[in-house]
Amino acid sequence: MRPSIGVDIGGTKVLAAVVDGRGRVLDTESTQTPGTGPGLERATVAEVEHALVTVVSALFQRHGRSTVGVAAAGFVDASGERVRFAPHLPWRDEPLATRLGEQWGGSLIGGVVVDNDANAALWAETRFGAARDARDVVMLTLGTGIGGALLIGGGLHRGRNGMAGEFGHTRVVPDGLPCECGNHGCWEQYCSGRALARAAAAAGSTLSGPDLTAAAQAGDPAALAAYDEVGRWLGLGVANVVAGIDPELVVVGGGVSAADELLLEPAREALAGSLVGVGHRTLPSLVRARLGSLAGVVGIADLARDRTH
Amino acid sequence: MRPSIGVDIGGTKVLAAVVDGRGRVLDTESTQTPGTGPGLERATVAEVEHALVTVVSALFQRHGRSTVGVAAAGFVDASGERVRFAPHLPWRDEPLATRLGEQWGGSLIGGVVVDNDANAALWAETRFGAARDARDVVMLTLGTGIGGALLIGGGLHRGRNGMAGEFGHTRVVPDGLPCECGNHGCWEQYCSGRALARAAAAAGSTLSGPDLTAAAQAGDPAALAAYDEVGRWLGLGVANVVAGIDPELVVVGGGVSAADELLLEPAREALAGSLVGVGHRTLPSLVRARLGSLAGVVGIADLARDRTH
Repeated sequence: MRPSIGVDIGGTKVLAAVVDGRGRVLDTESTQTPGTGPGLERATVAEVEHALVTVVSALFQRHGRSTVGVAAAGFVDASGERVRFAPHLPWRDEPLATRLGEQWGGSLIGGVVVDNDANAALWAETRFGAARDARDVVMLTLGTGIGGALLIGGGLHRGRNGMAGEFGHTRVVPDGLPCECGNHGCWEQYCSGRALARAAAAAGSTLSGPDLTAAAQAGDPAALAAYDEVGRWLGLGVANVVAGIDPELVVVGGGVSAADELLLEPAREALAGSLVGVGHRTLPSLVRARLGSLAGVVGIADLARDRTH
Repeated sequence: MRPSIGVDIGGTKVLAAVVDGRGRVLDTESTQTPGTGPGLERATVAEVEHALVTVVSALFQRHGRSTVGVAAAGFVDASGERVRFAPHLPWRDEPLATRLGEQWGGSLIGGVVVDNDANAALWAETRFGAARDARDVVMLTLGTGIGGALLIGGGLHRGRNGMAGEFGHTRVVPDGLPCECGNHGCWEQYCSGRALARAAAAAGSTLSGPDLTAAAQAGDPAALAAYDEVGRWLGLGVANVVAGIDPELVVVGGGVSAADELLLEPAREALAGSLVGVGHRTLPSLVRARLGSLAGVVGIADLARDRTH
């Protein structure tokens, strides 16, 4: 199978990669995401598109033209054609796949496929990572917030609006902490990188991010307490998701998952302690994602190849 | 298409029906569910099976043998063969389909199919009722608690343990009201027939069930306040489910849904007020189920026919 190209438009960088049929990354090219930092609101559709085209063109030159998939943190319609809304990007109902297809011309094999970054990451884990050969999988990406995706019967479930998997915005505390989405008590306010830093601060630590992970791994009590609290919230929220979906597997990725068992052990305990019918069911495995920050490009490259062969 | 037979083993009666290919009920037969009332714990597997066989045999005599489907409030394995656990019935890992198939002999066309009653009701609504031709549907049955089922891509999603759709036991209030399942704060404690009676009592009414519905329809303020409160909890919980699944349709059945718009109007308002990304998505329709108390027999009869033709 021919290699294909995957592009992941993240909050800080646009990463493109040439990926072969076994999910191996053969080459990469990246640039800063336009408008990140203080000037965020000034990035235009043209600027983002220019960054995207630049990294892909460099790979075209080195490897020849091939199918392209684009993953972005945003809501993509079910046909994989239009980005309806991307909170951190200027796209609003943007017909991205068609525009890029036109730009790259008819010589582009198979055209362009667009999907949500969480869907791309779950697809990568399903094909080459922690969820290989699984049929019903929930993926949660714990970063600043919670990204989510659903595999049902071996296929991605995108939902009517392409918005399925937004588990982070289920309300777990009435009148709870305010959320960027405008509501209160959303799960991601209790289970995310931000929640972790908050829990660490409450326990007397000033660390966050990779430093907090390192401190926890070194046995720092405040850092451990923070992971324990966020891990428990992870398990409680997973119990809610599992009650509805009954998957065989829950895969946890994103920066917060770097703490691995320090996060997953309290989560498994909370899950077993609060899931309905525990005595009469097989609990889903709760495991860490395997493909790390490359999951997006690997998954979207494979989805693009899949769609066209 | 030949008619098939559907049996719904409910909390108070065992109802069997001959159902044609258009979902029309041609004949019914029923008996009391063994062990209901004070003697519940004394009903044996043999007694329940006897009741089931008795009603089906009567229909066999009047209409000839045909495919049989059995729906029960319980967890049925994904193959439709074994009842793993039924909270109100004596079945524990019971190979019901095989046992009944043996009992009725090889002359039975197509054998016996067993499924969860909520799955059967959703299937009936999908084929002949409120969810006709829909692909992604959430069904909620508001009775004593909340029953639930999921249609994904036009097919029932049962999950690894046949336990998908247990939305009623998602936790919506930390340290909330105690639930029969052993946890606290489950959604069904705030959104069910029992929650309705509690809300009515808090508003000064002594009514419950159909009397409470009638009082609300007649404009009784306490009854209206109760439906408003439970309706709001319905909308808030539906927002959580929709954030994860993004369905096109949410169908609400069960006794509590008899109040129709008195329940659904506050629910729609709460849904629109708390669902993530409301400005960027099409909201799912929130509608009342159409097939009422016959949904179980109609759905399971159709599933049995489907499986065998």
